[in-house]
Amino acid sequence: ELRTQEHYFGRETLDRLSVKRTDTEWLEAKQKNPDSVYLLFSNLIPMVSNQPGDGEEGETKLYLLRYEAVQDLLQKPETVLIFLGVKRRNISSSLTDVNVEELPAWFAISTDEDTAELLKRCPEKNCCFPEKAFRDLLKLSEEDAGVVAQARSVLAWHSRYGFCPTCGSGTKMEEGGYKRSCLNPDCRSLNGVHNTSYPRVDPVVIMLVVHPDGNHCLLGRKKIFPAGLFSCLAGFIEPGETIEDAVRREVDEESSVKVGAVQYVSCQPWPMPSNLMIGCLAVATSTDIRVDKNEIEEARWFSRQEMIDALYRKAAPVLTVPPRQTIAHQLIKHWIGVSSNL
Amino acid sequence: ELRTQEHYFGRETLDRLSVKRTDTEWLEAKQKNPDSVYLLFSNLIPMVSNQPGDGEEGETKLYLLRYEAVQDLLQKPETVLIFLGVKRRNISSSLTDVNVEELPAWFAISTDEDTAELLKRCPEKNCCFPEKAFRDLLKLSEEDAGVVAQARSVLAWHSRYGFCPTCGSGTKMEEGGYKRSCLNPDCRSLNGVHNTSYPRVDPVVIMLVVHPDGNHCLLGRKKIFPAGLFSCLAGFIEPGETIEDAVRREVDEESSVKVGAVQYVSCQPWPMPSNLMIGCLAVATSTDIRVDKNEIEEARWFSRQEMIDALYRKAAPVLTVPPRQTIAHQLIKHWIGVSSNL
Ligand SMILES: Nc1ncnc2c1ncn2[C@@H]1O[C@H](COP(=O)(O)O)[C@@H](O)[C@H]1O
Ligand SMILES: Nc1ncnc2c1ncn2[C@@H]1O[C@H](COP(=O)(O)O)[C@@H](O)[C@H]1O
Ligand SMILES: [Mg+2]
Ligand SMILES: [Mg+2]
Ligand SMILES: [Mg+2]
Ligand SMILES: [Mg+2]
Ligand SMILES: [Mg+2]
Ligand SMILES: [Mg+2]
Ligand SMILES: [Zn+2]
Ligand SMILES: [Zn+2]
Repeated sequence: ELRTQEHYFGRETLDRLSVKRTDTEWLEAKQKNPDSVYLLFSNLIPMVSNQPGDGEEGETKLYLLRYEAVQDLLQKPETVLIFLGVKRRNISSSLTDVNVEELPAWFAISTDEDTAELLKRCPEKNCCFPEKAFRDLLKLSEEDAGVVAQARSVLAWHSRYGFCPTCGSGTKMEEGGYKRSCLNPDCRSLNGVHNTSYPRVDPVVIMLVVHPDGNHCLLGRKKIFPAGLFSCLAGFIEPGETIEDAVRREVDEESSVKVGAVQYVSCQPWPMPSNLMIGCLAVATSTDIRVDKNEIEEARWFSRQEMIDALYRKAAPVLTVPPRQTIAHQLIKHWIGVSSNL
Repeated sequence: ELRTQEHYFGRETLDRLSVKRTDTEWLEAKQKNPDSVYLLFSNLIPMVSNQPGDGEEGETKLYLLRYEAVQDLLQKPETVLIFLGVKRRNISSSLTDVNVEELPAWFAISTDEDTAELLKRCPEKNCCFPEKAFRDLLKLSEEDAGVVAQARSVLAWHSRYGFCPTCGSGTKMEEGGYKRSCLNPDCRSLNGVHNTSYPRVDPVVIMLVVHPDGNHCLLGRKKIFPAGLFSCLAGFIEPGETIEDAVRREVDEESSVKVGAVQYVSCQPWPMPSNLMIGCLAVATSTDIRVDKNEIEEARWFSRQEMIDALYRKAAPVLTVPPRQTIAHQLIKHWIGVSSNL
């Protein structure tokens, strides 16, 4: 089976079982079921446990709680509860007679209770809420990262979209956390289907621009990047725009380089807060660089060899690249592999 | 130059010139410039003119107004004004010294004034606001459709997102219509960059599912479809999900058919209100159909020959397909062309 490349945050660890989101009876029973699994989020960060391991930093795992350990939180009106799904069966077991509705349900809980108090729910005392989302959420297993991508994006939506954008009234959560409805009975948003009621996903293009010579690629750096770090250019897709035109527009805006052909490669959900990174290779038709100083500090063409040295951390590389968990890293790696054909 | 297939609504007729969105002085001068072009929207529908033409229904064109004709509307506080850009130079003229900032600026204006009154601004009296967006917006030229895709999506965002989703306060428009900022100085949304301030684009997967035998494809129909019409399955990408997994999930949800490989083909902006339709071919690994009756009335496998008959409107086809302006139509056509290789 031909599968597009898988990225960190991209694994579908859970079957979302969306048909169950409207089955409130089933959801309520699952909530109280002792087999159900709860992930605890504070400030959009999940509680994790740290186990000493082979690696330098040990192993970071999502800490799974049971109903008993979160029962009190579930009763508080400020708590946000999301139904995430059930563990996916792998292909072989899907052929057997497993009733997915009987599998343990996974939930995410978000609370603003004091974090020190929340950590007392972990008897092993090796739990924490990592402080830097960008860095610490990249230490999970692929399986855990897939769950976090889903849970964090939906929770971020609730934290920012608690009011109806159409009339300013309060809203209430529905459908296992996948919908918010306006509480104002006269609101337009209640007539027909409106995206205001559903979680937002922001599509972003991220592209490796290849030099017309086929042997160099264009990378840029923002002021906030650590010294020496360069990455792929990227930008939000605008209303009324295709993926391919967004690539051409953003590259032009950020570097003045003109792009012709654009080829989709693969994509990555990026839950900071809820982006879908759409990864492309783009072939430049011009080479002069003039950066948009508002967004980009510097952009440069790097040779194939420089990129190989950076990816495989040769001594004294001329640049560093983002870590393997990012689609930028994987796009560069992909280009190294396919660039002879371009 | 290798270009991905172009779809209706997908043409970048204008250079968005986003760098000018924050240049209020330039924008104000352009507003009053007699060369500037205004499109007038009422209820998210643009004013168009109908010219008798070769075709049965004649030619439908965006009606372009000048500053003089809209000056009064610009002074009303309820009027929404969007800066759309300037006409794109074609490749040859881009080599010359045209200063894009001196080209005529295009704006979209949205007003809730009485439409009969608004139509008086068209001296030729052949103007109207078409009544059915889904049908009538498909009659424009490719060039006009590209402008409408951009303008209508942004206007639809303003019409639904006038209040701050984070705190419920009012918001004000900025950056030529590409931003809304909360008027509550204590609002969280003003600290850092938040998607609540920017237009929403909803990524949707739309897929032609190919039978394991390579010679049939899966189409479905909703209850609201005209009799006999079948189309590709489609669905919103959810938070934390890849394009490929969204294809697998939606096909499974809507038809129970299991999908293996997924291949991106091309995409289409769909300004009803602001979707990005991401078109894919999907290879089925199972064939039994069980439809989700909430969403789909019927789904069926159709043979290659049945699809050819439907596309080229042979006598008594077993189904009809959506019109050529839709990516669904184009995906089917694409499959007919490539299906021998699958
Ligand atoms: N959905 C969005 N979320 C965050 N920022 C956005 C969004 N859409 C547009 N922007 C703007 O785009 C800038 C980043 O530029 P880029 O990623 O290159 O498009 C941000 O600083 C915002 O001003
Ligand atoms: N952004 C969105 N806009 C509109 N409807 C949505 C959105 N996200 C989820 N939905 C729901 O998805 C249904 C359509 O199903 P589908 O297009 O197959 O995902 C709608 O009736 C809504 O209940
Ligand atoms: Mg950018
Ligand atoms: Mg941008
Ligand atoms: Mg940019
Ligand atoms: Mg659907
Ligand atoms: Mg669906
Ligand atoms: Mg759906
Ligand atoms: Zn409302
Ligand atoms: Zn606010």
